[in-house]
Amino acid sequence: MSEFIDTCRTLVGAANVLTDSADLERYLTDWRRRFTGKALAVVRPASTEEVAAVIRLCNEHRVPVVPQGGNTGLVLGSVPDQSGTAIVLSLSRLNRIRGVDTINNTMTVEAGCILEQIQNAAADAGRLFPLSLAAEGSCTIGGNLATNAGGTAVLRYGNARELCLGLEVVTAEGEVWDGLRGLRKDNTGYDLRDLYIGAEGTLGVITAAVMKIFPQPKGQLTALAAVEAPEHALRLLSLAQERCGAALTGFELMSNFCLQLVTKHFPQMRLPFPQPYAQYVLLELSDSESEEHANTLLEGLITEALEQEIAQDAVIASSIAQSKALWNLREHIPLAQAEEGKNIKHDVSVPISLIGEFIRVTDVQLQEQFPGCRMVTFGHLGDGNLHYNVSPPEIGSQDAFIEHQSAINRVVHDSVHRFNGSISAEHGLGALKRDEVRAYKSDVELRLMRTLKQALDPHNLMNPGKVI
Amino acid sequence: MSEFIDTCRTLVGAANVLTDSADLERYLTDWRRRFTGKALAVVRPASTEEVAAVIRLCNEHRVPVVPQGGNTGLVLGSVPDQSGTAIVLSLSRLNRIRGVDTINNTMTVEAGCILEQIQNAAADAGRLFPLSLAAEGSCTIGGNLATNAGGTAVLRYGNARELCLGLEVVTAEGEVWDGLRGLRKDNTGYDLRDLYIGAEGTLGVITAAVMKIFPQPKGQLTALAAVEAPEHALRLLSLAQERCGAALTGFELMSNFCLQLVTKHFPQMRLPFPQPYAQYVLLELSDSESEEHANTLLEGLITEALEQEIAQDAVIASSIAQSKALWNLREHIPLAQAEEGKNIKHDVSVPISLIGEFIRVTDVQLQEQFPGCRMVTFGHLGDGNLHYNVSPPEIGSQDAFIEHQSAINRVVHDSVHRFNGSISAEHGLGALKRDEVRAYKSDVELRLMRTLKQALDPHNLMNPGKVI
Repeated sequence: MSEFIDTCRTLVGAANVLTDSADLERYLTDWRRRFTGKALAVVRPASTEEVAAVIRLCNEHRVPVVPQGGNTGLVLGSVPDQSGTAIVLSLSRLNRIRGVDTINNTMTVEAGCILEQIQNAAADAGRLFPLSLAAEGSCTIGGNLATNAGGTAVLRYGNARELCLGLEVVTAEGEVWDGLRGLRKDNTGYDLRDLYIGAEGTLGVITAAVMKIFPQPKGQLTALAAVEAPEHALRLLSLAQERCGAALTGFELMSNFCLQLVTKHFPQMRLPFPQPYAQYVLLELSDSESEEHANTLLEGLITEALEQEIAQDAVIASSIAQSKALWNLREHIPLAQAEEGKNIKHDVSVPISLIGEFIRVTDVQLQEQFPGCRMVTFGHLGDGNLHYNVSPPEIGSQDAFIEHQSAINRVVHDSVHRFNGSISAEHGLGALKRDEVRAYKSDVELRLMRTLKQALDPHNLMNPGKVI
Repeated sequence: MSEFIDTCRTLVGAANVLTDSADLERYLTDWRRRFTGKALAVVRPASTEEVAAVIRLCNEHRVPVVPQGGNTGLVLGSVPDQSGTAIVLSLSRLNRIRGVDTINNTMTVEAGCILEQIQNAAADAGRLFPLSLAAEGSCTIGGNLATNAGGTAVLRYGNARELCLGLEVVTAEGEVWDGLRGLRKDNTGYDLRDLYIGAEGTLGVITAAVMKIFPQPKGQLTALAAVEAPEHALRLLSLAQERCGAALTGFELMSNFCLQLVTKHFPQMRLPFPQPYAQYVLLELSDSESEEHANTLLEGLITEALEQEIAQDAVIASSIAQSKALWNLREHIPLAQAEEGKNIKHDVSVPISLIGEFIRVTDVQLQEQFPGCRMVTFGHLGDGNLHYNVSPPEIGSQDAFIEHQSAINRVVHDSVHRFNGSISAEHGLGALKRDEVRAYKSDVELRLMRTLKQALDPHNLMNPGKVI
């Protein structure tokens, strides 16, 4: 292997082939610090051509490749296994914004660009790049595309997939596919783009992309509504979509217990209501006309929701600070749950119309098998995506409870499956859910996936052990 | 083969296996009546299971399968070749709407449903199914998905691809893949859905789909603006997107010559301006609030466009009849061009920002090589999609001019390629553009496409001779 490493050094420069264990550490450990793998080296090419050269070299030597962007994934998709036979291919030096076209409303960006860097470049050009998620200061667009990232603006703008018009990819054989087309319409053959998007680096390496950008909204307003049950939240969603159309850009559900945890662990935060309610909805409107118009729209919606008794109470943020405070409540839920102690997370989706029933049925099943467990249920209701998390009972050993993790996952994911849902709505499969998903996919689907993997990566060198 | 035909009859019923040449005629001839192929039989299954059984039988006997929906395609994608070895698999009896979910905003429909039937079923449920195109009274949703159909609402709602959440597919081996998921977020493996969409039946047969539906707009308004050049139309597009956001649902460009042809051949139609202008833009706004609000928005936009001298003149339709009259001008262009005589059509796209330059440069090249040819240039400017059609010079033999078809295609498509565009924006490749596209795709892309075809249809039985 020393010949392999030496050739790597000539391809990308010695300084960009890391083999020192102290240097490797952060590339080998996952974001949640639950797992550390091993690798031959971390290789950091600076261009598409260098990526292709490294992949060709890996092919010759049959060295597996683990592509890595910001390494912020939650399913062990971007770290190598314990075998130590693979290299980590860091895309972080491919970080140029190749171009911004404000008439075509597209940006061409390299895979290693940080999401925030792209948001800022769009803003500098007077445009909005709407992909937004918690890790945006660290994650890269290549990783966002490889995992088809979701986030908070999916309701209006779609997942990373819907935001991408074209890709540049280094194939598993080390060839460069230039599919960097900035076209809204192109029906000239198989949809290679969408095959690489969401494949988590198991079919090839995304090196650049053409992404859509949008006019910036002129006004953005937030409201918090209290509702009796998830079904009421769904009625509010229908009403909001009917009245506000595409102006509705956020619609988040949070249970009372979620916000109780937030105010318990972050006592400086307060709920804007004099009494607690069972469920809360955080709504966001983005308006292309003006803030006044957004306000009229939102006030009309809230008034009707109260009159129709869909909502029990509601507040509209009257300043940016108030709006931030409302979003803060939502964003502090995972932090508050962590403060409360160990917990078990699920990132699931079901058809939006079944969300109420899904929560009710699954809550009962969990209480029967794990009495006293506490549900921290919140999420992107407008996308049918719930973070359906489980905290241990208030009394008793947290560690003992956490040992039931597999059994709890099973109850939740079996229920998701019965509701025709997905056990990984946003986060992907990686190594963490690869085996589990087999229980829920048909043989036909698994066979089709294996056929594609075998066809496009015949030597199983691209991120092996992930997805399939 | 008589054994094969007999077994077909037992699988789908004797009445649904057509072998009589009079019965076959309409299945074998393409929509434009330019080509008639041959087939062993037309087989008309009534269910997904019957489709699967027929495909398995075809596998055993190595009989090629040409899937067919409404047979309205423009690129010879849904008719068999002249060999007479294939069957036509008509999906027209799979025409049930399996369900409408107005909370999830989805419909589950079988492949043979006529597009108009789906639009109507959505309307009956108080929803909009936005896919809309000229053949909507005849084309089927299966065909729309197999060709990733575009149409007039792509600007706001996307192509057929963007409207689809899940598919049911019979694979080339006759297995049923049930991917009928109605989820907005699902990151559990390779994107099989988008691989079958746009594959024109060459990888498998789409038998059903989950499609998105939307709240109906409360107001819809149309305007016609006169502009000096395509660049001014682009400035108007930017202004409209900035001011109206997602409310802008249509943005069509038409040159003066297009509308001259319309008023020449359909003298009852009139342009709403006292004098001619070089270019016209047809705009449509769809508003989620009210017709009054749409009107305020559109008036504001038009006023600013006139003040900024982006538009030279403009009218807003003040009644449904006036709005229809404006759309009629647009929709009569292909008819008027046909009345004028033979012509050569191109369905191309380029990055929106390059449209003006593309038209100017390509017009010059055509005039140099084919002096006097008359350009009938119109299309979905908001999507970068032009119907860049060429009519013969006013004087001289039309037939002699049409003999230059290949050379003219070459000039246009070479130019499209230089502008990083697509030689088939909406219509697909079929048999008509299959060979031509090879000149414009990289070897890497063609190889990837062939690899996928080989992997998913190893015996080359699914719509052979199409796409690849």
